[in-house]
Amino acid sequence: MENAKVSDLWDRARAGDVAALGRLVTLVEDEGPARGELLARVAPLTGRAHRIGLAGPPGAGKSTVAAELARRFRDRGERVGVVAVDPTSPVSGGALLGDRVRMGDLESSDGIFIRSLASRGMPGGLSLAAGLVADALDAVGYDRILIETLGIGQGELDIVPKAHTVLLLMLPGTGDAVQLMKAGLMELADIFLVNKADRDGAQALAVLLRAQLTETARPAGAWMPPVLLTTAYRGEGLDLVLEAIERHRAYLTTTGGLESRRRAGIRAQLRQLVEGAVLQRMWSDPVLSAELDKAVEEVAERKSDPVRSAARLVQRMLPGRKGAR
Amino acid sequence: MENAKVSDLWDRARAGDVAALGRLVTLVEDEGPARGELLARVAPLTGRAHRIGLAGPPGAGKSTVAAELARRFRDRGERVGVVAVDPTSPVSGGALLGDRVRMGDLESSDGIFIRSLASRGMPGGLSLAAGLVADALDAVGYDRILIETLGIGQGELDIVPKAHTVLLLMLPGTGDAVQLMKAGLMELADIFLVNKADRDGAQALAVLLRAQLTETARPAGAWMPPVLLTTAYRGEGLDLVLEAIERHRAYLTTTGGLESRRRAGIRAQLRQLVEGAVLQRMWSDPVLSAELDKAVEEVAERKSDPVRSAARLVQRMLPGRKGAR
Repeated sequence: MENAKVSDLWDRARAGDVAALGRLVTLVEDEGPARGELLARVAPLTGRAHRIGLAGPPGAGKSTVAAELARRFRDRGERVGVVAVDPTSPVSGGALLGDRVRMGDLESSDGIFIRSLASRGMPGGLSLAAGLVADALDAVGYDRILIETLGIGQGELDIVPKAHTVLLLMLPGTGDAVQLMKAGLMELADIFLVNKADRDGAQALAVLLRAQLTETARPAGAWMPPVLLTTAYRGEGLDLVLEAIERHRAYLTTTGGLESRRRAGIRAQLRQLVEGAVLQRMWSDPVLSAELDKAVEEVAERKSDPVRSAARLVQRMLPGRKGAR
Repeated sequence: MENAKVSDLWDRARAGDVAALGRLVTLVEDEGPARGELLARVAPLTGRAHRIGLAGPPGAGKSTVAAELARRFRDRGERVGVVAVDPTSPVSGGALLGDRVRMGDLESSDGIFIRSLASRGMPGGLSLAAGLVADALDAVGYDRILIETLGIGQGELDIVPKAHTVLLLMLPGTGDAVQLMKAGLMELADIFLVNKADRDGAQALAVLLRAQLTETARPAGAWMPPVLLTTAYRGEGLDLVLEAIERHRAYLTTTGGLESRRRAGIRAQLRQLVEGAVLQRMWSDPVLSAELDKAVEEVAERKSDPVRSAARLVQRMLPGRKGAR
């Protein structure tokens, strides 16, 4: 795409043209040659939007909560972007705000812009794209950006630094809480939601979480994550979630946390970009690629084991440095 | 851990000591110094087990199907390993084969060994560990290794090359099939399961899948993936799945596909090992680490954008080569 066209799209998106914004976001997502130029325009204008991450196991109700929050923000006159990273999310299937999401992966209705990101099959690819799309929405004037993450697992950790406020959703009676504690994910959340609170065990789960949070050592004046009960599909409890989000934002603003989280997000983004480029260049090198073929043969014929062969390959790739451990 | 101790564990695990095997698997998973030594022992003994991958969206019933298949294989006198990669899987919560999984993340009952892998927060970390654990189980004499993958998304693609036979599970009435087609995941599966086939729309989904598969061009004599209806929580349809698995294995053996899949798995494993080591060394280099800090500042102060700064960092890391695209 020529610069003139990018420039035109950019102007139209900034002026509120949602179709133009949709195409612009696709350019950001697609890693094409226009991405660099676009992000150079985006970068100086970022840092204004409040980014809210929604994490939690599949089926915990992340999409429903995102939709409820998006509507509430919009009703207050804010512009809301929703970036769904989970390809299994009902968002992709069109549950969020109606079936129109199905149409071209794009939805906009009175100040809400939704984009569901498809997996690119690249490590870190999805969460990298999510952050860059959030940057673009931020730059064109969206006030809140809701980022719905992959269930729980690797993607989770990637997305956290991209949000200022992280909501963690759990369901009663699933053992989720134990898993989250084990995985060390509890420390990453700013607000806990026990969703589907009309189910048995909701109060007990909230009590358990609060006890756990109370036991966790934190400095004086530090944010104490609230544990809120919601039944999102009936819209219950969401007003309190909104209030908690606002309190957390105020807390971050007062303590300088907003800026430090922004920097953490930038760091994560840079790392992902660098790692993607380094690995891509590494494997597109014909010499290294031939070395890999040779190593595959050695291991397949049981003349070497994968760890030993991998160490040798690393040695070839970074020859100036000391051996792999 | 001294070599003598690794050697002792190894001998005991090979002799059928399940506690020793559990500790051995932990060593493989943990990336500690003993891993290399262990894998050198493991490598020459791999290649005998049949590796079966289970993929599909969260809630599709992967764990239930894995449990049903594991029981059937065991009842035929085979030794079965189950490696669950999905940290949100009910396996971690103890649903599979009873609550004993909760106890130290390890279960063994009459020839079944289960390991649920925790996320290490590293890209590719989980699927790499899953492959190495499968290698270890293969080497100590397990006949079938069931690998239950992350839902759908990035992890999915990683795990596929580690299995000889890939089962893809779908639920009726969810739009999963459309998502899977879009994501190009249908081509990766050898056997399709429409699970929870007692639900409305199961037959229609099976018809849709079969039509799609029939339309796909494939060489003469190529494997035609069957589409099977199962209701796994009632044990229905699993005998036919077992039969299809056996047919697929026989097909692979006849056509040499077993060996080519083994090589693809080795290639994926080597790539992951190399990438992990390269990235780890890259970021532990104090010079590069300082460059990253500088780049974070530039971007945070809006003097640069992430793509430009990342390209400069890549230049520093791989100075001998041409610039990032």
